[in-house]
Parts: sequence; structure tokens; C-alpha cells
Amino acid sequence: MTILIRGGTVVTHDETYRADVLCIDGKIQAIGTDLDAPAGAEVIDAGGQYVMPGGIDPHTHMQLPFMGTVASEDFYTGTAAGLAGGTTSIIDFVIPSPGQSLMEAFKTWRGWAEKAASDYAFHVAITWWDNSVREDMGTLVREHGVNSFKHFMAYKNAIMATDDILVASFSRCLELGAVPTVHAENGELVYHLQQQILAKGITGPEGHPLSRPPQVEGEAAGRAIRMAGTLGTPIYVVHVSCKDALDEITYARQQGQAVYGECLAGHLVIDDSVYRNKDWDQAAGYVMSPPFRSQEHQVALWKGLQSGNLQTTATDHCCFCAEQKALGKEDFTKIPNGTAGIEDRMAVIWDEGINSGRLSMQEFVALTSTNTAKIFNMYPRKGAIKEGADADLVVWDPNGTRTISAETHHQNIDFNIFEGKTVRGIPRHTVSQGKWVWRDGDLRAEQGAGRYLERPAYPGVYDVLKRRAEHNAPTAVER
Amino acid sequence: MTILIRGGTVVTHDETYRADVLCIDGKIQAIGTDLDAPAGAEVIDAGGQYVMPGGIDPHTHMQLPFMGTVASEDFYTGTAAGLAGGTTSIIDFVIPSPGQSLMEAFKTWRGWAEKAASDYAFHVAITWWDNSVREDMGTLVREHGVNSFKHFMAYKNAIMATDDILVASFSRCLELGAVPTVHAENGELVYHLQQQILAKGITGPEGHPLSRPPQVEGEAAGRAIRMAGTLGTPIYVVHVSCKDALDEITYARQQGQAVYGECLAGHLVIDDSVYRNKDWDQAAGYVMSPPFRSQEHQVALWKGLQSGNLQTTATDHCCFCAEQKALGKEDFTKIPNGTAGIEDRMAVIWDEGINSGRLSMQEFVALTSTNTAKIFNMYPRKGAIKEGADADLVVWDPNGTRTISAETHHQNIDFNIFEGKTVRGIPRHTVSQGKWVWRDGDLRAEQGAGRYLERPAYPGVYDVLKRRAEHNAPTAVER
Amino acid sequence: MTILIRGGTVVTHDETYRADVLCIDGKIQAIGTDLDAPAGAEVIDAGGQYVMPGGIDPHTHMQLPFMGTVASEDFYTGTAAGLAGGTTSIIDFVIPSPGQSLMEAFKTWRGWAEKAASDYAFHVAITWWDNSVREDMGTLVREHGVNSFKHFMAYKNAIMATDDILVASFSRCLELGAVPTVHAENGELVYHLQQQILAKGITGPEGHPLSRPPQVEGEAAGRAIRMAGTLGTPIYVVHVSCKDALDEITYARQQGQAVYGECLAGHLVIDDSVYRNKDWDQAAGYVMSPPFRSQEHQVALWKGLQSGNLQTTATDHCCFCAEQKALGKEDFTKIPNGTAGIEDRMAVIWDEGINSGRLSMQEFVALTSTNTAKIFNMYPRKGAIKEGADADLVVWDPNGTRTISAETHHQNIDFNIFEGKTVRGIPRHTVSQGKWVWRDGDLRAEQGAGRYLERPAYPGVYDVLKRRAEHNAPTAVER
Amino acid sequence: MTILIRGGTVVTHDETYRADVLCIDGKIQAIGTDLDAPAGAEVIDAGGQYVMPGGIDPHTHMQLPFMGTVASEDFYTGTAAGLAGGTTSIIDFVIPSPGQSLMEAFKTWRGWAEKAASDYAFHVAITWWDNSVREDMGTLVREHGVNSFKHFMAYKNAIMATDDILVASFSRCLELGAVPTVHAENGELVYHLQQQILAKGITGPEGHPLSRPPQVEGEAAGRAIRMAGTLGTPIYVVHVSCKDALDEITYARQQGQAVYGECLAGHLVIDDSVYRNKDWDQAAGYVMSPPFRSQEHQVALWKGLQSGNLQTTATDHCCFCAEQKALGKEDFTKIPNGTAGIEDRMAVIWDEGINSGRLSMQEFVALTSTNTAKIFNMYPRKGAIKEGADADLVVWDPNGTRTISAETHHQNIDFNIFEGKTVRGIPRHTVSQGKWVWRDGDLRAEQGAGRYLERPAYPGVYDVLKRRAEHNAPTAVER
Repeated sequence: MTILIRGGTVVTHDETYRADVLCIDGKIQAIGTDLDAPAGAEVIDAGGQYVMPGGIDPHTHMQLPFMGTVASEDFYTGTAAGLAGGTTSIIDFVIPSPGQSLMEAFKTWRGWAEKAASDYAFHVAITWWDNSVREDMGTLVREHGVNSFKHFMAYKNAIMATDDILVASFSRCLELGAVPTVHAENGELVYHLQQQILAKGITGPEGHPLSRPPQVEGEAAGRAIRMAGTLGTPIYVVHVSCKDALDEITYARQQGQAVYGECLAGHLVIDDSVYRNKDWDQAAGYVMSPPFRSQEHQVALWKGLQSGNLQTTATDHCCFCAEQKALGKEDFTKIPNGTAGIEDRMAVIWDEGINSGRLSMQEFVALTSTNTAKIFNMYPRKGAIKEGADADLVVWDPNGTRTISAETHHQNIDFNIFEGKTVRGIPRHTVSQGKWVWRDGDLRAEQGAGRYLERPAYPGVYDVLKRRAEHNAPTAVER
Repeated sequence: MTILIRGGTVVTHDETYRADVLCIDGKIQAIGTDLDAPAGAEVIDAGGQYVMPGGIDPHTHMQLPFMGTVASEDFYTGTAAGLAGGTTSIIDFVIPSPGQSLMEAFKTWRGWAEKAASDYAFHVAITWWDNSVREDMGTLVREHGVNSFKHFMAYKNAIMATDDILVASFSRCLELGAVPTVHAENGELVYHLQQQILAKGITGPEGHPLSRPPQVEGEAAGRAIRMAGTLGTPIYVVHVSCKDALDEITYARQQGQAVYGECLAGHLVIDDSVYRNKDWDQAAGYVMSPPFRSQEHQVALWKGLQSGNLQTTATDHCCFCAEQKALGKEDFTKIPNGTAGIEDRMAVIWDEGINSGRLSMQEFVALTSTNTAKIFNMYPRKGAIKEGADADLVVWDPNGTRTISAETHHQNIDFNIFEGKTVRGIPRHTVSQGKWVWRDGDLRAEQGAGRYLERPAYPGVYDVLKRRAEHNAPTAVER
Repeated sequence: MTILIRGGTVVTHDETYRADVLCIDGKIQAIGTDLDAPAGAEVIDAGGQYVMPGGIDPHTHMQLPFMGTVASEDFYTGTAAGLAGGTTSIIDFVIPSPGQSLMEAFKTWRGWAEKAASDYAFHVAITWWDNSVREDMGTLVREHGVNSFKHFMAYKNAIMATDDILVASFSRCLELGAVPTVHAENGELVYHLQQQILAKGITGPEGHPLSRPPQVEGEAAGRAIRMAGTLGTPIYVVHVSCKDALDEITYARQQGQAVYGECLAGHLVIDDSVYRNKDWDQAAGYVMSPPFRSQEHQVALWKGLQSGNLQTTATDHCCFCAEQKALGKEDFTKIPNGTAGIEDRMAVIWDEGINSGRLSMQEFVALTSTNTAKIFNMYPRKGAIKEGADADLVVWDPNGTRTISAETHHQNIDFNIFEGKTVRGIPRHTVSQGKWVWRDGDLRAEQGAGRYLERPAYPGVYDVLKRRAEHNAPTAVER
Repeated sequence: MTILIRGGTVVTHDETYRADVLCIDGKIQAIGTDLDAPAGAEVIDAGGQYVMPGGIDPHTHMQLPFMGTVASEDFYTGTAAGLAGGTTSIIDFVIPSPGQSLMEAFKTWRGWAEKAASDYAFHVAITWWDNSVREDMGTLVREHGVNSFKHFMAYKNAIMATDDILVASFSRCLELGAVPTVHAENGELVYHLQQQILAKGITGPEGHPLSRPPQVEGEAAGRAIRMAGTLGTPIYVVHVSCKDALDEITYARQQGQAVYGECLAGHLVIDDSVYRNKDWDQAAGYVMSPPFRSQEHQVALWKGLQSGNLQTTATDHCCFCAEQKALGKEDFTKIPNGTAGIEDRMAVIWDEGINSGRLSMQEFVALTSTNTAKIFNMYPRKGAIKEGADADLVVWDPNGTRTISAETHHQNIDFNIFEGKTVRGIPRHTVSQGKWVWRDGDLRAEQGAGRYLERPAYPGVYDVLKRRAEHNAPTAVER
């Protein structure tokens, strides 16, 4: 298939310039002014619009079995919604149960993902430890293109990784050239606060943020970062929601440490007043961890994006409908944690980031696509507009508007955390693997079209660490 | 007994002024100019000298059973050496073995301490957890004048307190009005690094600092501080040795949190080059945890004292002679951890702090005595020159000099970490309980003269927390 | 005159304890439990109340000629209002016109102040420079008990001190042992912004905060602090109103520099929404410099008080009535800058600081009285409850309430920035120079009873600097 | 002319990959694997070598008239030395005398620069102010491709820009879309300290760093940054030499402000002990401003480069030979300020940055070339390896070594601040405008081959500011 995007302004993390973009057989074939349309090419006029790399969402949970239910969005519906939102790749998570073989879990998730409409990759979670886990990590890195492992520092009595597991797994990551990532909340504190709050008779969603205050996240972020620093690995902190965690990242980066932080679209624009909504369903609809925070934290997160101390944006897309949320009707600790957003992320960040002047367009591209591709070693196949790169593109209409609503969204959930928000700046068209998948409101996602993305070990974030280790070998341990 | 100290300059944490001080029957009876000497009073001329509250060392380990041996300094020899150095009170530690009853351990230590020559108190360590520990904490606070509990975050497979214990114990401290204190080093990381270093064939003392880098201390300090902040207790970090931990304290204090930091005389002036001494005995003599650090950390610690972010100074006095240190001849992880200093602390800090202009004299008194008394609720009985206060005083000669040496010190150990250092500014005379115990080089310490100091719950550091809790009761949990 | 305050709880910056206080002939004669009342003593029952050092307001402008008018409050009415509010001493400012002899201005202000009802002292402003200024500074320090000089970094084309003056004056302060203080706002930027805003047609009070954004204050604070640091003087920053300036102070203090910050009661509780009031008189009533700030700055200031990075509280009491404010009806830059507060400071800070649990009572005393006495060398004559100290006391009723209003206040101004605020915790009685001057709502201020306070050079804040200079003489310049 | 660089590894700020690079007629024509050599192409084997964008030095002073003499290096010799070092473009400075027409000065410098061997641009200094300066700034931006103006905050009584000039010029830059840059040292303090030091009888080069301590630089950096922040311009701080200034940059960047910092190769590796050399010529050879600093500052600067808080590296290449330095034989304030380095910058930074593992190769390219091109709007013509970019390239041999010496360097100065340092990693070949100008030790620089580079207004660093201004127009002033 051949597509010519004509007359637009190309925006990458690096440059902004007028050019046409020609895509043939899934790849970007040419970029230039006044390109000729090959025979049979489908030509689209992108005049007045921006042509950008398709978004990459590094944090989704399609059809995740969690807290006694299964996320309502499957790999097909979820990736399709992503395409409608300009997002052309995701990185989802394989989460073995404690005791379960990593390879077995990996195969299960690979199976579920076969129906995906866009390209996808997997982080694999380390929820327990023995020698088989250690071995399977090697197999995953060397034979299956996994270069990142996730650690939940919360969820005590379930998938929480204690310090001994963190030390073992981070060390293994270093051997393999993989990136450890963490969900940073201190599980012991959360558990303690949950019991304390329930004991006071607070059982509704308003108890949720009380049980996970910002310090609990700051603590865990600091702990993981210093462990990584001591052991010599890079570290990636998922869904940074508060100033406390951001401050830890900033501190370490100022020491020259290789630390990366991810920020969710929701955390950037929604505050914790949602949990005080008297309508239980409304309040419960926002229950996710870490919770939404008071406004000062949103201010801090935007500054984190501006200063470069946060590098990626994501959604933690994990859908539970009202019926599922109701599992926690009597006890907020049983409300399935998760909210949607894959379809809305890019537009929300554009609207709040670009229209306000908080971000430049190049920063927008870096934060929604390119930085993720670099950190997780998919660049320049993904995240780039270069000859030879995958033809994953979004044609962005800066003047288009959309009022976000669960009524009209393509996500398979009956709730939208951005309900009623009108954004200016929307994905007008999306190209995935060189094909139109979203064409001015027409969603043409194809089940099973998505491919599994292998991500080689030793992404760029390891460069300095490797070099330093070689140079300082005799004293590497003392760093 | 009646003593009149005549013609000196009184220096407290608050003021500096010319006055005589009259001590009768163990108490300060009068402070003023030109006091008359009562009949029978022993008069000493303090002209040209400073009269200051006797030092309090909040961190000693007399005759501690540890790492397969017992500290060589007992409560008599250790407190006597303290008196020779101007230190008139200590707070030592009761350290139950995991599984041992707190009350039993407390009684054992109380028995050992009966021969002390100066007044003393005890922190009690929480090394394990069950309901009996919880109950015993209450008994100790309510019936035995213990208002502080210690937690070792290092020493895995021995006395390390994991996060669940920290949460439980800190919460219990809050109920009781006691102050949690922590030895801040991440025990999992230390253990991992020790194995890694031994595996490389590094078995000597030079491996010791490599296994406990500053980040390991910074991590644990940050963790304990945020736990305390979340739970609503004050927190006291013992032997802060590096910028990393100090930065955590500073950060939390700037948020208004009640965090306190202690600094050892040794960490202020000795750097980690000592571990690279080719003489094994010399290098091993400096093995303690946290280890001595590179020079930038000493610079940082002094600034911490100047800015008020660190409040107390101590020694972690824990003596092991060469023969004992030799237990780790083949394996640095087996070298008994500990160094001496109770006799030298005040003179070293005066010499380095006052003579250089780093500290004012009032800061010196605050840092060596008064702040400890306040934090642990012994003020103004201790740490003050006020009518009615205990007559624990040091007459300080700013021009006297002494060259520190194991040859001449009164400590029961064959090594001195300050060996060869000449200090200007020395304790010329010391008064304990209203008696001369150190008189111009003559040590008159009396075995058994020391008294156990009861320290009531809810020291001043709890004031704001209590007030805030009362005021915010309904939402106290969210703080 | 003899007064016995019986049954209260004494609160100082250092301690809280039950005691009676006996005052004879203007001095504190005795402190103790169950004191006997001497013959003729007036006894007051302070049961359930706190006995604290009278407040000291280090920043007032009584009857100041400024911006074409004269402040409505004179030294008698102003100090009387202070006594009604528990404040027993002030430090006002002598502000010579550029070119005017310092000694001449000093004499003028001394004359005006003779009718003061409470004790007072003067900072003297350096608004220009030549050798006579240099000489007069010496005379003021050596012969007239002035130990602090003020520098306005704002008010271009009027009293602004440019960098050359700052360098000359700070250096002179160092020679004399006096403390330089600064009003920190960049006058060039303010002037530029004023012109720019007027040019846009914004002429009302809403233009005032726009012309003096926080960065303008942060800049000047940082500049003055680093100048002081380079030259080796302490520095005191008046009316710190924003996080930007506080951050500069905090940064320098962490380096060990002798920097002090003052905070106004108004800046702690009032935000900048007042300037957007459509009622011109209301909005203009709040015009002062630096202006009130957005809420995040109030949060920051409270943390500054809690962490010890800010040490004193004041009012910048400078009264202009509606008629005077009207001078700027057409041009906000002509609205006389100033607000009242000497009567309300202590109650507002108690209510917001103590009732909320933000501050301890000892911190309250330090922040409203003792720290000012120490920094400006009036301690322990002022700011203390000690035998021999001046009998300036306030008996504080923690349960008393008052609704603040211009209708009922004793200040000579028709406006109150705290209008309508009900405080819990009020000065029940005030003792000045050993006499009842405020007795349960009865104001007995006596015109002319106040005395001029001489403040010797080299206050405590110089201690370390002097010591360091002596020790490092050869390299003192490089400090 | 046609050149094919075959078999190398291309390294840009964005990527590292194996590719050949074909240059035709001064432009990069093609990049790819296994490119065919066109007829007549000169082919070079770059196997085992890195092909990188030629360096850009954003801070040089060729043949500058300064302090009573003229820099010994002219535009030909200086740019030729740059080519030998892998640097293919410079940005020099037009520095009008106070009172001199900007256009006149600009023409003078343009004339001098005609003999340059490599491409060049000019920053223009604002050393005084009147309406003609304002007008000329417009002319320079609109008609002559100048998009940056320099301000010296030091050099009182010469070219120092006081605050009123800074405010006026920064505001003008905002109107024009130009970037203000500053030499950040407080000129009043420097002047004062110089007089003080001379008065003590210190006249030698050891007085130089004493007169310009780090706080003096930190102050000025903070002042300029906050002025820019208030007015809404970006700001670029030249030659950041110390932690104090870096901290100001970091602080502002964390607030989201558009601040950029430049760092000199010399400041990264040389410490202030050089000024204590007893050999006057040696010590004077290092006299430049800001001076070399103590080691902690070098540590801080490297961290600044690693964290991204510093973006560019330069040399401040300004050559004075021994005879010229001797002008200050009796008075260090008269030693012409300046040191060389254009030939050595890239190799020194590679050796210290890459071999140590401090930097990645992509960071190296960004820091030596690309970031400068972006900030000053020369990208992607300069600083890039892209089709259509200027063929300015360096072929870097990571294993080549060179011992730096004034004996062998190509710079026209008899001194080298890196004398005796052996670097590993050298420019093996340099291509400028598509021609070999340095070929394995053979320098083929051509006098007059350099072209003046026009740099359009509104470089990328203005993007967010412009967008924000548009969006927030009504309240733009309050930002």
C-alpha cells in the first residue's frame, strides 16, 4: 500500500519543517517537499496540519486479570481505541502470579495479544524470585526481545516485590542489559493505612487517596532509585503522580544517574477532589494507584515534563466498568484499581500542554512517542519520521475539537475520567504500518494486524553505564 | 558537697555571660556575679575559661555483645573516660536478640550499667515483632522512663528491622509518645554488596566501605523519614555520615517535618582513606558502620551542623581491641564494627568547630549537650546551666592542648581513631552530680555513682504533632 | 511598682513550665512556684493562661513621610495599639532622604518617637552614599546604639540603593559589627513593569502585584545574600513574602551562611485575590510592597517558619487611610504603600500557627519576640523571662476570642487587612516596663513612657564570622 | 568536490549507526550503507572511527582588542586551529566600546573576520544604551542574521551592563526574537574585592581568583536568569564555571524556565591551584574570568552536563602571549584576561567525558555541536548529519592519542592550559564545507574560505514563550 501525506508540517522531537511524507509497504519511503505521488498512491491533504510520529503508550493493561476480575478492554478493542487517538504502539505487561513460571505467563499474554490491531511489546513483571525466574529473565531477553522488567513495590500479600527481590532482579537486569521499572508505592505503609482507615469506618472511595499519600510514593521512588544507583542499572519509574517522587528523580538525575520517569495524562489534569464525589460510581470510577493528587502535584508534574526530569507519558490504561468497580462497594480496598485513557492521552496532553504554551510541539512528540522508543530500544523504527522507519504516523489537526465522553469514545468501558472535557487539537488521521486506520473519524482498525515488537537488550540508557563499567572495571563496585 | 566555680564565662546554648556558678548537693544553686562562697565550699578559679553544661553522648554501646565478642569498654570504664572528656551523661542501647523479651534485655542492661560512674539512660532496640514486644514497649515507656526506640535497618539475618516491623513499631511509638530512631543503611543492599565483594576476592578492610556506599545510607534515611512522616511520628536518625542522608533530613525538615539527625565526631574529621592503610590492624581499627566517607561528606556534615539540619553529636562509642578486630582477618564482614571516642568527642568538635570559626560557642553547647537533652526529654535537668538543674558541668580551657593517643587516653581500648591529633581547647575540669570528677588531669570517677535517668514520654519534639492531631482529629490520617 | 502574675504557665523560646512571675520596678525579680506576693503587689491570676515575653515587632513605620503623605499612625498611637496586641517593643526605621545627613534624620526620628508608649529602637536606612554617610554610620553604631542598617533595593528614583551602595554599606557594616538588612525587590524590574502595565491601560490596584512578581523579590534576596556572603557580613531580609526569596535564604543557610529572614503576619494569611476586588478602596487598602501573593507562597512561608529558615515575624506597620490611598486613584504606582497590623500580629500568628498545629508554643515565642531580640542584640533584656530581664510580658488567653475589625481596633487607620477574622487566642493582659498597660480590654498606654533602646554592635549573629576571621586572617578575603 | 567517507560509524546527538556519508559541493548528499563512490570522489576509510558533526564553538574572541592589547589569534589562525581540532564553526563576539555605534562595530568585526578559514557568526555585545542601540539591535536581527546579544555583568568602568541596561536590552531581545546572553559576574563586587586585595599587597595572579569567588558568579547568574524570567525571554549563561551558577540554572529550569548554560573545556578539568604556581608566567597564563575553580566545582559541572542542565561547551578562546600577560606584572587586575583552547576542546572533552564513562557519545555530539546549533538557530544546517546539511564533519579516532603542547599546537599563542595532557580520542580528519581541511595531521585550512552565518530570529528556544504569549495575551505580563 502506498500513501502520500501531502502539504503538512512534519514535527519530530528534533525538528519542525514543511514536507510531504511517502509511505510504501509499511515503511516511510521518502520525506521531502513536492514529492510526486507514485501510481496508485492514496494522497491525503495535510495542509494546516502536523504530521507526527504515532504515539507510543508505554503503560497499558489490556484484559488484565486483577483484583478478582478482568479488565474489560481486550487487546483488540484497546489498541483500536489507541489508533483512534493517534497511538500506534503500546507496551503492555506480562504479570505472572507469584510462583508462576515467567515463560508460561509470557506465552499466555502473547496469546491474548494476537488480536491486537496495532504493534505491541511487553514488559514482564517480577513478582517473586527463585532461580527459575532468574533463568527465564535471561531467556526473555535473549530470545524474546524483552528488555524491561517491572516491579510492584505495592500490593502486599499479592504481587509486591520486597527489597531482596528488587536487589536480585535489578542485579540480573544489569547482567542482561535490561531496564528495571517500578511501580513506586510502599506496600507496607499502604497496607497499614488501609487497615487504619477501614478501622475508622471509612469504607468509600474517599479512603483510597488517604491510604496512599504522596510520601508513600516518594519513599518507594527514592528506594528504587538508590538501589539502582548502587547496583549500577538505569531505572524507570512508572506513573509518577506527585512532587515527592519527582523530587527523588530530579535529585538523582542531578547527580548524573540514569533515571527516567513516566507521567500519566490523568495525573496531569485531574485532582483528588474526584474522590469526594458523593456519587459512589463517579468516585470509584477514578480509583487507580497511585491516586489523583492535589493541584500542587499537577503543577509539579508539568514542570517535570518541561525540565526534562520526566521523559514519557502514558495512561496505565486498565478498564473496569461500573459493575466491576462495585466489587469494592463495601470496602474501598476491593475496588479494582484502574482507569482508561489510551484514546485520549495525546489530545489531552496537546490541549493542556501546547495550547497553554507549557510545551513546545517538539517536546510533545518526544513525550508522547520518541522518548519511549529510545528508552525501550525501539528507536528509530518507532518514534521517528525518517526514511526506513515504520510508517506509524498521526496527522494532527491543531484546530479540530472534540468533547471527550464515554458516550462517544471507542474504549470498551462505561466511564471516562476526562468526561466532558473539550480538547482543541485532535488526531485527524492515523497511519499504522503504512495503512490508514483512522481517517477523519472513521476507525478502520484491523483485528490481528498488530505485530509483537522485539526490543533488543542494552538500550541507549545503558550506554554510559557500560562505558563506565569497562573503564573502571577494577573499582566498578565502588562506583 | 559545695562547689563554687568562680570567675568563668558561662556558655549555654542560649547565652554567653560572665558569672560564678554555685553547686550544692548535686544541683546548681545559684548563678551570678561575685557570689559568696558558702562555708566549706570548694572554690575553683575559672578565669579565662568557659563554664558549660556537661556533654551528653546520645549514642554509646558499653560492653555490647556483638559479632561474636563483647565490647571491651564496660559501663564504669566508659563513663569514666567520658568524664575525663567533659561528658557527664550517656544514652546507651538495650539490644534484645530477635525473639528475646524486651523486659528481660532491659533488666540485663540495667544490671550491667549499675557500675557506671556518670548518669545514663537507655534507648531500647526493636529487633523483632510480636504482641509481647508491643506490650513491653508500653511498659518501658510508662514504667521505666524509656522514651526512644532504636531500629537497625542494616544487619540482615541478625537484628535488621524490615518495613513491616518499622511500620508497627513507629505506630506504637506514636501511641506512646516515644521517639523512633534508626540506624539507616539498607541491609539488603549491604548484604548483596558484601557477597559481591567477597566473591571478587576482596576480603580486607578496604572492602568495608565498598559494601556500604553513601546511597545505601541515603536510601534508608529517606525511607525511615517518609515512614515517620506518613505515620505522624518524629524521627531521629543516628550517626548521619554522608550528604545523601543529610539531604533527606534537610528535605523533610523544609517540609516542616519533625526530623532530627545525629553526627559522630569521627565522621566529621576522618575520611575513608584510612581503609586503604596497608597495615591491617590500622585499617580494621576504623571499621564501623556507617564507614568513614570521602571528604565531600565531611564538608556536608559541618554545613548540616551549621544550618541546624543536624542537631546532636555523638560517638557510637563501641570498643573492640586488636585481638577482637582480628576475628575478621580473613573476611572483612566479620570484623567487629565499632570505634571509640567518648573521651575525645568534645575536644575534637571544639578544635575543628570553634577554632576554625565553623561554629559559635553556643552552637557547640547545643550540639554536644542541650539539643540531646531536649529531644530526649531530659532538659532542663540536663543540658542547662540554670538554678535547680543537675550540677553536671565542664570547665573548658580554650587554650589548653592535648595530643590524643591510645597511649594516654582513659578509654579501655588499644586504638584511637584520632591518634596523634593535637587539639586546642580541652576540658580542664568536670563536675558530675556536683562533685569534681576530673580536676586538671586527675580522674576521680567513682564506680557506681551514675544514676539511671528516667525520660518521660512526649518530649518537646512531639508538641506540634500532638497539637496538630488534636486540631485535625477527623482527618488526622490524611495529614 | 510591683506585680505578681500568679498561676500561669510560663512559655519561653526554650521551655514551658508552671511558675509565678514577680516584677518589681520594671524588672523581672523572681520566677518560681508559689511565690509570695510582696506588700503592695498587684496580683493577677493567670490560671489557664500562658505568660510569655512581650512581642517585639522588628519592622514598623510610625508617622513615616512617604509617597507624598505621612503615615497616619504616630509613635504614641502605634505603640499603644501594639500594647493592646501584646507587643511591647518595636524597631522602627530612620529613613534619610537621599543627600540628607544620617545624623540629622536620626535626630528627627528620635524627636518624633519621644511620645512612644512602649520601648523602641531604630534601624537606619542607607539611601545614598558619600564619606559623610560612612562616618555617620560609625557614629550611630558607636555612640547611639544602632546596630542595623536598612537598604531598599526597590523604589528607583527615590531611596533605592544600587549595587555600589550596597557593597560600600555592607562593607562598612562589617567594620562596625552592624547587621545589614534589605528590602528585597529589584527596583529596575519593578519600574519597568510599572511602565509596561500602565502603558497597557491598567491603572488600578490589580496592577500592583503584576508589577512586583515573586521573581523580582527572589532576585534581590539572592543578590543581597550573595553580596553579604562574599563580603563576610550576616544579612537580614525583611518581609520575605514568597517562595522565591525563601529559597534563596534556605540555600544560603544550607551552606552555613548567616542569613536571617523576617515574615509579615499579613503575608502568612492573605492572598493576592484581594487586589482583584472591584471596590477600589478595598483593593487599595491592601497595597503594600512586596504585595500579597498566591496561596502556594503562604504554604511556603509557614514551612519556612517551621524549618527555622525564617526566624522573625513583623508587620511593616505603615498606616495610610482611604483618603491617603486615594492619591493613587488614577495610577496604582502612586497609591501609598503600606498596611497596618501591629495590634493583630500575635493573635493572627497564634490562631493560624498554634491552633492548626503548625507551630509549637516555644516556636511562637521565638518567632514573635526572642529571635528578634537575639539577632538585634537586645537579648536577654528583651525577649526573655529571666530574672533581671525587662518586665515586658503578655498574659495569653488561649481560649479568648476576638473578631478583628477596623471598627474596634486601636490602630489609627480606617482599614484592617484582617477585617472580620475571628481569632482564638488573645493577649488578655500586657505588662510593659513592669506596669499593666493592657488589662483585660482596658488600654492604659502612657504617652512618652517608651524608652529608646540602645543596641550594641556585634550581636550574636556576628560570633562565628568574627571567630572565623580571626582564625583565617591571611586568607580572610577568599572566604 | 565529492567526498565519500566509508565504513565509519555515524554518531549524532540522536543516534549511532553504521553508515557511509557522501558529500558533494559542500553538502551532505547521502547517508547509507554501502554507498557507491561517484566518479571523481575522494574516498576515505573511516573503519573503526566515528563520523560526527563538526564542532561548533559558541564562544571565541579572535583578535579582540581588550585590556590595552589585542588577542594574538586572528580569525584565520584561530579558525584554522579549530579545524585541526575538529571544530568547523565558531560564534565570535562583536564588542562595541561604550558609546560606539553597534553597526559600526559590527562592520569592523565583519571585516576582520573575512579571512576566517571556517564558517562563523557573531553575537553582539550591548555595552551601553540609548535609542540608537535599540534601533541597531533591530537592524542586526532583521537584516544581518544576528539573533543573540551578549551582556557583560562584570568589567565595571568599562563594558559592564548595569541593571537598567539589562532590563532594556532583554526587553528589546523579546521584541526581536533574539536570545540574550550574559557573562555572569557581579562587577561591583569584583571591583571592590580587587581594590581590597591590592590594598593588602597582593598583586600577583594569586589575587585573581580571590577577587572573583564563586558567589560573585552565582549572584549574577541568578540576577540575569530572574530578569529574563520576569520579562519572558530565554537566557543563555556563558562560561558557567561553578556550582553556584549551575545551581541557579538548575533551579530555574526546574520551574520550566528557558535557561541555557555553557561550559568551557578548561573549567571542566583545570583547578585553581594553577594560580598558586610560583612561576609568574605560568600562573598568569591561566588568568581568565571567571577563573578556574576548586575541584568540587568541576565535579558539579560534569554533573550539569550529564543532567542536561548545561547544554553547550565552548572555549572563550582569547589568546594573549607571555609578553601581553606581562602588562599585569605589577597588578593582577591588569593581566589581560583570556586563555586558548579551540584546538583542544573536543579532544579534552572526549578524553575526560567519554573515556571515563561520564558522557555517552550522543551526549558528546550534542554538547560540542548540536545543542549550540539549535539554541542559536543554525540547526540542521549545522550540527547535524542529515541529507542537505552542510558537510562539516569530523572523523574521530577513538584510539588515537595526542599529547597537548604549545610546542605543537596550531594556535597562535605561546601557552597551552592543557600542556602535557595526553588525550585518547582525536580528530583524525576534518571536513569543512565538503572539503578536507585536516587530514591525518595535515592542516589544509584556507584563508578566507569561511562564510558568515546568518542566524534567523526566534530560534527554537523561543517556541514555548511565543506560544504562551499568544495564548495568555491578556495576562502575559504576569506570567
